[in-house]
Amino acid sequence: MKTRIGIIGARGFTGGELLRLGLTHPGLEITYVTSESQAGAPVTEGFPGLLGWTDLRFSAYDERAALEKADAFFFALPDGEAMQRVEPLLRAGRKVVDLSGDFRVRDRPTYETWYKREHLSPSLLERAVYGLPELVPNVREADLVANPGCFPSAILLAVAPLFSHGLAVPDSLIADAKSAVSGAGGRSSLDPSYSFAAVSDNFRAYSVAGHRHIAEMEQELASVAGSPVTMSFAAHLLPLMRGILTTSYVTLRELRPAAELQRLYAEFYRNAPFVHVLESALPELRHVSGSNACHLAVRVDERTRRAVCVSAIDNLGKGAAGSAMQNMNLVCGLDETAGLRVPATGP
Amino acid sequence: MKTRIGIIGARGFTGGELLRLGLTHPGLEITYVTSESQAGAPVTEGFPGLLGWTDLRFSAYDERAALEKADAFFFALPDGEAMQRVEPLLRAGRKVVDLSGDFRVRDRPTYETWYKREHLSPSLLERAVYGLPELVPNVREADLVANPGCFPSAILLAVAPLFSHGLAVPDSLIADAKSAVSGAGGRSSLDPSYSFAAVSDNFRAYSVAGHRHIAEMEQELASVAGSPVTMSFAAHLLPLMRGILTTSYVTLRELRPAAELQRLYAEFYRNAPFVHVLESALPELRHVSGSNACHLAVRVDERTRRAVCVSAIDNLGKGAAGSAMQNMNLVCGLDETAGLRVPATGP
Amino acid sequence: MKTRIGIIGARGFTGGELLRLGLTHPGLEITYVTSESQAGAPVTEGFPGLLGWTDLRFSAYDERAALEKADAFFFALPDGEAMQRVEPLLRAGRKVVDLSGDFRVRDRPTYETWYKREHLSPSLLERAVYGLPELVPNVREADLVANPGCFPSAILLAVAPLFSHGLAVPDSLIADAKSAVSGAGGRSSLDPSYSFAAVSDNFRAYSVAGHRHIAEMEQELASVAGSPVTMSFAAHLLPLMRGILTTSYVTLRELRPAAELQRLYAEFYRNAPFVHVLESALPELRHVSGSNACHLAVRVDERTRRAVCVSAIDNLGKGAAGSAMQNMNLVCGLDETAGLRVPATGP
Amino acid sequence: MKTRIGIIGARGFTGGELLRLGLTHPGLEITYVTSESQAGAPVTEGFPGLLGWTDLRFSAYDERAALEKADAFFFALPDGEAMQRVEPLLRAGRKVVDLSGDFRVRDRPTYETWYKREHLSPSLLERAVYGLPELVPNVREADLVANPGCFPSAILLAVAPLFSHGLAVPDSLIADAKSAVSGAGGRSSLDPSYSFAAVSDNFRAYSVAGHRHIAEMEQELASVAGSPVTMSFAAHLLPLMRGILTTSYVTLRELRPAAELQRLYAEFYRNAPFVHVLESALPELRHVSGSNACHLAVRVDERTRRAVCVSAIDNLGKGAAGSAMQNMNLVCGLDETAGLRVPATGP
Repeated sequence: MKTRIGIIGARGFTGGELLRLGLTHPGLEITYVTSESQAGAPVTEGFPGLLGWTDLRFSAYDERAALEKADAFFFALPDGEAMQRVEPLLRAGRKVVDLSGDFRVRDRPTYETWYKREHLSPSLLERAVYGLPELVPNVREADLVANPGCFPSAILLAVAPLFSHGLAVPDSLIADAKSAVSGAGGRSSLDPSYSFAAVSDNFRAYSVAGHRHIAEMEQELASVAGSPVTMSFAAHLLPLMRGILTTSYVTLRELRPAAELQRLYAEFYRNAPFVHVLESALPELRHVSGSNACHLAVRVDERTRRAVCVSAIDNLGKGAAGSAMQNMNLVCGLDETAGLRVPATGP
Repeated sequence: MKTRIGIIGARGFTGGELLRLGLTHPGLEITYVTSESQAGAPVTEGFPGLLGWTDLRFSAYDERAALEKADAFFFALPDGEAMQRVEPLLRAGRKVVDLSGDFRVRDRPTYETWYKREHLSPSLLERAVYGLPELVPNVREADLVANPGCFPSAILLAVAPLFSHGLAVPDSLIADAKSAVSGAGGRSSLDPSYSFAAVSDNFRAYSVAGHRHIAEMEQELASVAGSPVTMSFAAHLLPLMRGILTTSYVTLRELRPAAELQRLYAEFYRNAPFVHVLESALPELRHVSGSNACHLAVRVDERTRRAVCVSAIDNLGKGAAGSAMQNMNLVCGLDETAGLRVPATGP
Repeated sequence: MKTRIGIIGARGFTGGELLRLGLTHPGLEITYVTSESQAGAPVTEGFPGLLGWTDLRFSAYDERAALEKADAFFFALPDGEAMQRVEPLLRAGRKVVDLSGDFRVRDRPTYETWYKREHLSPSLLERAVYGLPELVPNVREADLVANPGCFPSAILLAVAPLFSHGLAVPDSLIADAKSAVSGAGGRSSLDPSYSFAAVSDNFRAYSVAGHRHIAEMEQELASVAGSPVTMSFAAHLLPLMRGILTTSYVTLRELRPAAELQRLYAEFYRNAPFVHVLESALPELRHVSGSNACHLAVRVDERTRRAVCVSAIDNLGKGAAGSAMQNMNLVCGLDETAGLRVPATGP
Repeated sequence: MKTRIGIIGARGFTGGELLRLGLTHPGLEITYVTSESQAGAPVTEGFPGLLGWTDLRFSAYDERAALEKADAFFFALPDGEAMQRVEPLLRAGRKVVDLSGDFRVRDRPTYETWYKREHLSPSLLERAVYGLPELVPNVREADLVANPGCFPSAILLAVAPLFSHGLAVPDSLIADAKSAVSGAGGRSSLDPSYSFAAVSDNFRAYSVAGHRHIAEMEQELASVAGSPVTMSFAAHLLPLMRGILTTSYVTLRELRPAAELQRLYAEFYRNAPFVHVLESALPELRHVSGSNACHLAVRVDERTRRAVCVSAIDNLGKGAAGSAMQNMNLVCGLDETAGLRVPATGP
């Protein structure tokens, strides 16, 4: 029997991708989807690409209905919402994978500094497990998973092996990220910053210091490295709908040949079904778009003793809905790759 | 046990899509893929988006190996090639779905006029079944399927109900088509007409009279209408990789309300799992891209007594590899939708 | 001394293009620009691409200030606005080029049928001259110019020679147009239909019957042909910011060779500095983008006795601001090409 | 009387832009354009966007004809060609602006290390002046100008003020650059890496260590700083035709407020007509595309004591043809901005 799934906040880009993946998942059944603004409308009206796939309609969120209709939940609401709704579901034995930033930062003061708001369920901060199973071992045991930010997914996978092996100078990391619209916050199609006129045939930097995702990256890298890490991070907007490519610069404690680092990466990710370490090629967004894959490459700039680490993910895939599905599989006791056997769309 | 499948000519856009669909198909197993230029190389070198999905390598085509390794074949070679290779495979009891133009035109002189070449297996012309199962009833019994051209798939589905019901003035059809690069013939990435510089931020007409696809469209419409049909057709190139949208203008024998035509369309396609007749919206490429769906709309211009029929397909989906898979399912006795339960990629 | 120019409604796409052209014009000086929402802000805040080019600020429209500051005006307001403001300016001896639909349809009932509103300055309808100088001889004498719609500019230039020479079957014209966002009505960056998510990697039909521009096209073709003309028209949205390409199908009274029609076109436009009749190539948007050029091709489909006429313009150039500047040059007694000596941007 | 100009190697992207700018230049007249492959063909056949602008035809390069027909030359040939042809022209008193890498690196061994070839005119290396007039004072006196690489133009302008004022830690600079196709080396439309299929809807890193442009950047920064500079540089490919955006990370010797750095930048570029230092906004490619402008922003990441410097140029404008025209103006004694009074294309 399939696990019954609710998607809370199903109208955005991430909600749409959760639907696309969920409706073809062999072990899950989408039974409850919410949208306050579209309540009552057929899901296919909001997502005509799902015509023929589902007769579901959006509901306004209602706790009792949620508990009746579903065994586990994706939360895909804006920051600050899930923390107000998750607790009773957990108490009733439901599993939750939250795609917002509400539970990613374990330390409450750190959370409140970076997110500039009070946390309303501080007791859940420690209970939540950071859902990057390639680095975090205990996702399978969690009932509340904090799904990583899209940028952190891409950057942590790209540099974790260096920090894990003590090869990185701790404060040397600079991560330069380039994101498609669906990952950059273009949530509302009403924001003129994300109009076709503003994005097409264009490229711009939009956050060059102080992005919230730094908090969870420093937290997880410290955990991997065993000591504090400080980093710089900048985000740019690509004229694309899907994909994040990141280029990270890390000063090496001592120079190592690129081939050695590649072996180390391949070994580090040998049990990670979605991570592919490229040898001769460099990652490209087209090769991961539509999938849950992460393509990685590591190179060495000998003149400056820096490693240059490049990663590509689909921000809606491994950067959001795909990884959330991977986490849901784990907490539901399913195969990690169930429902994610979808190659990149290509060509 | 899965049917073993060979893809002959697997290196192009269509070959890549056949791989993407075939590698996740529940009833088929890809066992043999050919490319003369890439023989020996891993399939994932040509299609990095398939990393993690297959260990297959390209072979040079060899009839004996083909017969040993596969039960059924997709041919995705340039026009004029399949007609030289298919006969021995059929004789050995194999099924073939050919994606070229070699077997689409049943009448030999008509073929030779439009394709400007001699047909080398004329006896197969009558044996082949035109693979548009929404209009052609006997695909399931075929062993040689002529997969329709991408434009004909889109246009025939858009106007067939009008011709089938005798509503169309026979020589009034004008079909204006807009195609993405992968459908327009941008087969070779070496053709400067399909360089990024030539296609991006651009739109152009590329064939406004005498396109080969007219032959099969007039043939199939005549078959549907029961009398000869003559049409105009023009093709344009969109700055996109996937999708064909067509707008067809048909003078009605007598004026009918749009709602009546919509009902008639819905009825006509009530058993076609991939065809969706829209009511209030007009088709958009984004809603079919990556899928085997065809979205249709029919409107009436009362001032001119013309029906305007709009259709959208993914040229690699319902316009090529998707419909080829649908046909393969039929000739192999599988469910028509097997392996095609892939929603549009979105968002 | 330069003629002083006011741009009324300078904040939209057309306003921006009028500024780009006006600020480098040798014979005009932009002295007054209005925007109700941006009043007080520097023009360069709305158009950062003009940084270094102007210190102008937007004003709220004020008739007295307008009369003081400028000798001639572009009106680039939404339909229905210019008709309320133009009369006093004309009375004061000012010239006006209006880019809205307010004065394009000479017959009041026809106007009111297509635009579904009452005309508030009906006396001006006859005074206004339709500003397509390639077809209309008396623009130079006008004080009120109705600048053509973007689609009509492209389509009229494409088919006028056939109608002018009596070669076209009068009710046979079908014009299939494909427009970039800035021409399709994506005026407000707040309209979700024109978000990046809705337009990019997409193509859609958006008006397949009853578009307002039909009124002025039938009017002008009737004038060129000397008898009534009825036509079909459909508009589609390209994932581009600039450009309109149109494909028009016209049944010929009798078959003529393409070469003869090409000669006839070349002759028809021999004094039109912005119209180029291509011989072997077909028009492409990239080759006119950023300029005031119109590229044309005419072909013949002998099987159906139809001429196929393709035209390409920049909808902001010859489709709006460029042609408005051309008209302003004429009414101000300047050289028709002044300020328009800007080649296509390319590559 | 206008200075007569030859463009040697006029068929590429840069050649096309030199033509676009040159054909509308008030003080220059293009009299000689070469292309070996197109010799004899009208320039408008290669650049249909110039239809109506010129009757010139391409010639095969011939030194005698060159000397007869032109007073000054742009060289836009691949690396290694200009060094074989420039000397006799200089001897005959002609001015040369070379857009290749042949004369950018003053030190011969450094040149030969980075370019991996012997320099065939080493005596010219010292004679050539590096053509970035915002940093280099003596361009006006040169007869041989080495036009900067596109990436160096963008990056040097972005960080020079910090190095000039001694604020930068010398080996801390990391420059992450994102380039459109016409700047990334997509010279030949026959290279499958630059096909529409390979570039569209994609983003990739293509050079993460050891790019040749590092040589000239370290050279010029050392000159500005008065001491050696070592840097990291990575280049990425955007799905666009025009534009380079760079993000540079520089560790500050001591923390300074962003506002102070902004004032310092504004002062540094107060006489540079094409450089605009933004205050509240960040640079965007759309705002410089088609122009010779450079938009800059400098921000401070206090947590890491790094300055983040963002610059945007049109790689064909300030990154190649625009800056070459600026240099040509200077060596010909014209106003620095002549022929470059072209705002960004927008919208």
